[in-house]
Amino acid sequence: MKLSQLDTPVLLVDEAPFLRNMQRMQDIAVSAGIAYRPHAKAHKSAEIAKMQLDAGACGVCCAKLGEAEVLVSHEIKDILITTPVIGISKLTRMMQIANKARISVVVDNLDNVAEMAAVAQTCGVKPDIVIEVDIGQGRCGVAPGEATLDLVREVVATEWLNFKGLQGYQGSIQMLVPFTERDAAARKAVSMLTETADMIRRSGIRVDYLTGGGSGTSVTDATVKGLTELQPGGYLFMDSRYREVEWDDGNTIPFEQSLTLLASVISLPEPNRCILDMGLKAISSDGGPPLPQNLPEARFKFAGEEHSELSFENRNCPLKLGDKVSFIPTHCDTTVNLYDRFIAFSGDEVVDVWNIAARGRVQ
Amino acid sequence: MKLSQLDTPVLLVDEAPFLRNMQRMQDIAVSAGIAYRPHAKAHKSAEIAKMQLDAGACGVCCAKLGEAEVLVSHEIKDILITTPVIGISKLTRMMQIANKARISVVVDNLDNVAEMAAVAQTCGVKPDIVIEVDIGQGRCGVAPGEATLDLVREVVATEWLNFKGLQGYQGSIQMLVPFTERDAAARKAVSMLTETADMIRRSGIRVDYLTGGGSGTSVTDATVKGLTELQPGGYLFMDSRYREVEWDDGNTIPFEQSLTLLASVISLPEPNRCILDMGLKAISSDGGPPLPQNLPEARFKFAGEEHSELSFENRNCPLKLGDKVSFIPTHCDTTVNLYDRFIAFSGDEVVDVWNIAARGRVQ
Repeated sequence: MKLSQLDTPVLLVDEAPFLRNMQRMQDIAVSAGIAYRPHAKAHKSAEIAKMQLDAGACGVCCAKLGEAEVLVSHEIKDILITTPVIGISKLTRMMQIANKARISVVVDNLDNVAEMAAVAQTCGVKPDIVIEVDIGQGRCGVAPGEATLDLVREVVATEWLNFKGLQGYQGSIQMLVPFTERDAAARKAVSMLTETADMIRRSGIRVDYLTGGGSGTSVTDATVKGLTELQPGGYLFMDSRYREVEWDDGNTIPFEQSLTLLASVISLPEPNRCILDMGLKAISSDGGPPLPQNLPEARFKFAGEEHSELSFENRNCPLKLGDKVSFIPTHCDTTVNLYDRFIAFSGDEVVDVWNIAARGRVQ
Repeated sequence: MKLSQLDTPVLLVDEAPFLRNMQRMQDIAVSAGIAYRPHAKAHKSAEIAKMQLDAGACGVCCAKLGEAEVLVSHEIKDILITTPVIGISKLTRMMQIANKARISVVVDNLDNVAEMAAVAQTCGVKPDIVIEVDIGQGRCGVAPGEATLDLVREVVATEWLNFKGLQGYQGSIQMLVPFTERDAAARKAVSMLTETADMIRRSGIRVDYLTGGGSGTSVTDATVKGLTELQPGGYLFMDSRYREVEWDDGNTIPFEQSLTLLASVISLPEPNRCILDMGLKAISSDGGPPLPQNLPEARFKFAGEEHSELSFENRNCPLKLGDKVSFIPTHCDTTVNLYDRFIAFSGDEVVDVWNIAARGRVQ
């Protein structure tokens, strides 16, 4: 089937750059001698998770328990849930999948430790616990140093929980430019994690597992000594914001744009503008408006939930009814979450369909 | 089941105000002696569409063909598709459902008329055609007056299409304040449609059907003579923006907030702030940040796709781990589209579950 035969709006993945991105992150991890656990929240797809595992990933991350449930039901066997799982209902759900796969989960609160241990005992499983440390983002996480050590001690002392190690993710520096600043910030973030790990070791507790890092800081995260595992997500698809981030010695980021949206012209109300079938329900706006490709003079405007407009200053709209326009999203994660499947293509041929089985699994 | 037992984030509908909203719009239409065709793009749910039909609606609107396909598969029998359907693939899909239900579709382009007629003849069905007139929004639609008459003549002359009437929707005035300005703008918009209808009638063509209007202008749309059918959507749920719109004689809008989101505290990193399990994937941000209920001192901040933060100035966070917080969305349509079901409640009891079967049907 040809791309031109697809109904729109449709979420497309250009297979060759997508596979190159997958291999590049793998190479970064292998060169640095550390493991690589890509974040499935970016794609929410069992097919893509399996591709990442086949390429050498040690497992995947999920942001939500619901995503993990979907991936376990598709035979994914090693998952780190990177957001706290709170309350008896969700903890019970978690133990059910922990019976079928190796489930690790982050924890940053003593009450959660106590409740989780009780549910684990009731269910007869012993999940792997990763203490989330706030290494600068100011979101979830325990403060580095003593506070983390105190919580680790509690977990270690709890029979039905298995202390696995530490997580630290500094999301707010992933797009920092210039690279020298991002590199320095990433080194500082990792050092907060490694110094805390050293403190825990000095207290006699083994810490073999330090997970974290993101796509924007991955080159630093991999090479600075400390992390045992990378957990990048955005590198697979990129987006227009990430693409602008310089990398390393001033080159652009080595990951390629692989995710696009295809929309169609559905109305030509005036000579210098056209209306497309892609609105706020078909592409996320939280990162800003998407970028139309191959139409440098076009001005994009959202025109409600179902429509958008391309207008052209001082010239007629070059598009006719039914013409298709490709867009680069500004935020891939939230755009992917609007769709049930990716259409993978090569050239102008559809080559595969990957289901976004965990779409909408926010619980 | 109690609301407190639900996993979060979860999309809730308060049944009593929801049903009152449904009845109020029905009353507005009945009092004015016109029909009422609510817009299903707001809820994307066959269960809710059936409730609206049972309450007296003459049919429903859909924004997209894919929504209409889902509703037809759930036995909804009269649907107006309010966005142009372009290209042979989609037109063929449209004729397939036009074999099972009364399908009307808006048209604003001569090329679309020609292609639609050819596909209609091939499929042996004769769909109802509604000419979309641009009555001030500047999105899709033919200019009022001569341009509309020209297109109507083409449709009337086309054997396999059945000219049904005109659509005019002025979306950009729906939240205009003060009411006097909104009222004047709505009257002007409706008059553009009725004057064009009169011109068509003078040319000897019957126009029995004029559909349009929205929730914000519904009081005017219903009472000013002209429209034969209202097509409001937002009135069922409201949102924090609509709620601020004054109505009629300076009273607030008579529709009540019925849609909320429930999120949970999943982390307490510092005394004056907490982290919730609701991020950009669980509530839309295109209308601005959602409003936390019953927490007047809380400051809300999105903290990524999976998290948000409530912070409290000069006081400690009053919430503990696992506590639930209710939010009013700023844009219901795009929030509903993130979920697979509504949980209807009364008091603190869950009373029903309504599937959002057309979620994500953007094609």
